[in-house]
Amino acid sequence: MSGKYVHGYTEREAERLSDQAQTLTGLLHDDTRYPAGSRVLEAGCGTGAQTVILARNSPEARITSVDISEVSLGEAKKRVEIEGITNVTFEAGDIFDLRYEPGSFDHIFLCFVLEHLAEPHRALEQLRPLLREGGTITVIEGDHGSAYFHPDSTHARRAIGCLVDLQREMGGNALIGRELYPLVAGAGYRDVSVSPRMVYVDGSRPDLVRGFTRLTFTAMVEGVGDDAVNRGMMSREDWERGIADLYRTSEPDGVFCYTFFKATGRK
Amino acid sequence: MSGKYVHGYTEREAERLSDQAQTLTGLLHDDTRYPAGSRVLEAGCGTGAQTVILARNSPEARITSVDISEVSLGEAKKRVEIEGITNVTFEAGDIFDLRYEPGSFDHIFLCFVLEHLAEPHRALEQLRPLLREGGTITVIEGDHGSAYFHPDSTHARRAIGCLVDLQREMGGNALIGRELYPLVAGAGYRDVSVSPRMVYVDGSRPDLVRGFTRLTFTAMVEGVGDDAVNRGMMSREDWERGIADLYRTSEPDGVFCYTFFKATGRK
Repeated sequence: MSGKYVHGYTEREAERLSDQAQTLTGLLHDDTRYPAGSRVLEAGCGTGAQTVILARNSPEARITSVDISEVSLGEAKKRVEIEGITNVTFEAGDIFDLRYEPGSFDHIFLCFVLEHLAEPHRALEQLRPLLREGGTITVIEGDHGSAYFHPDSTHARRAIGCLVDLQREMGGNALIGRELYPLVAGAGYRDVSVSPRMVYVDGSRPDLVRGFTRLTFTAMVEGVGDDAVNRGMMSREDWERGIADLYRTSEPDGVFCYTFFKATGRK
Repeated sequence: MSGKYVHGYTEREAERLSDQAQTLTGLLHDDTRYPAGSRVLEAGCGTGAQTVILARNSPEARITSVDISEVSLGEAKKRVEIEGITNVTFEAGDIFDLRYEPGSFDHIFLCFVLEHLAEPHRALEQLRPLLREGGTITVIEGDHGSAYFHPDSTHARRAIGCLVDLQREMGGNALIGRELYPLVAGAGYRDVSVSPRMVYVDGSRPDLVRGFTRLTFTAMVEGVGDDAVNRGMMSREDWERGIADLYRTSEPDGVFCYTFFKATGRK
């Protein structure tokens, strides 16, 4: 094969990955559509990965996206501009101390935020007054303890456990998905409903194998390898075997399972 | 409250549990409907718990249900008679050595059978010739490694691990659900498709809390307690804490997750 073929092949792969990203997007976001004119607060927008999806799905809502990090906000603004999205306003702010009038928003949206907070329940409580009566909150989180796979591997499980432990040391909780119901209900919201969104990947779904098992989940675990080894959580050899075993699940006879959780509640 | 009230309350509870059993039945079985006159083999019918559901969902199919245990077959027959079901024939037979002509069946159905076999792949291979060309196979299995919960508990996880280890000692595999795709595809079936069926239980679903978390899953784990303790897998104290922690997940702020897998393939 010539370099040109390889390049063409790579382009097709890029398209597949993009398709795959859209599949996950659909799984997590497709049922969140806010009406025209509604005031939406995205609390903890980070670099805007979810902001873009949120804004596209609710093009006539007025979205306010806040984050505590000015650096992240800068990237988020750039991303939204590139996409030509115009219904988002960015503001710097601490999720525990936002300076909006009570009832300023019809809807609040958080995605992959609570997992990084030491006091997720308090964040939910602090946000509640910002909602109008009858307004909704939507929370999406993963749960790394929901990952299991074939072939099973104690080393791979231990490697994932290191990521969970490291996130816990930083005050977060990588197992928070399963807790969304008690967290949201416990923060005083009513009509709380949680729906799990399972990603099931087997050899019949090569795009998911590549886009989720390899490039999303395993790459994420792989990223904390030096931290885990340097802290003595696992030997380098065991760590590498764990990562190899995770990649092994992306062979044609492998299987990988992971579950996200989506909660909605009402003030 | 008088004894009569209590009795009435108990009756309502019994109704709820029955409703709940129907919910799980729906989750696992509702999309399996065989046409009138089709010849269906249920391989490994046990005491007929699934036979009754299968026969009700396909009332005009001709179902042959086989099991190696005459005792189980006797119970299955009784159960089917009580339900007034008339489209099932029971026959004793070894799933690895069934004496039917090649192509005798349009459909084969197995539920909670492969998990008990040391050679599940060989069972699937041995069954394949019994299907006509184009006939289908349907396989349903659980996966105890798919169980996770809130509050999390190492003792509870270890108790479930004992059940997995005990089943493995008996030649079975309590983690087989995740393997269905490679198993069925590897046995030569085509168009193999696996769909996970997740049971998500939180405080908003009290019937599932009782019917699944308490009376189905935790009761099942609890049942192997003496075996696990007598073999020194866990101390009595740790075991009891594990079981208590499993019951703890059925409190209003608890959450329990479990996933079944359903595979279909074609000859």
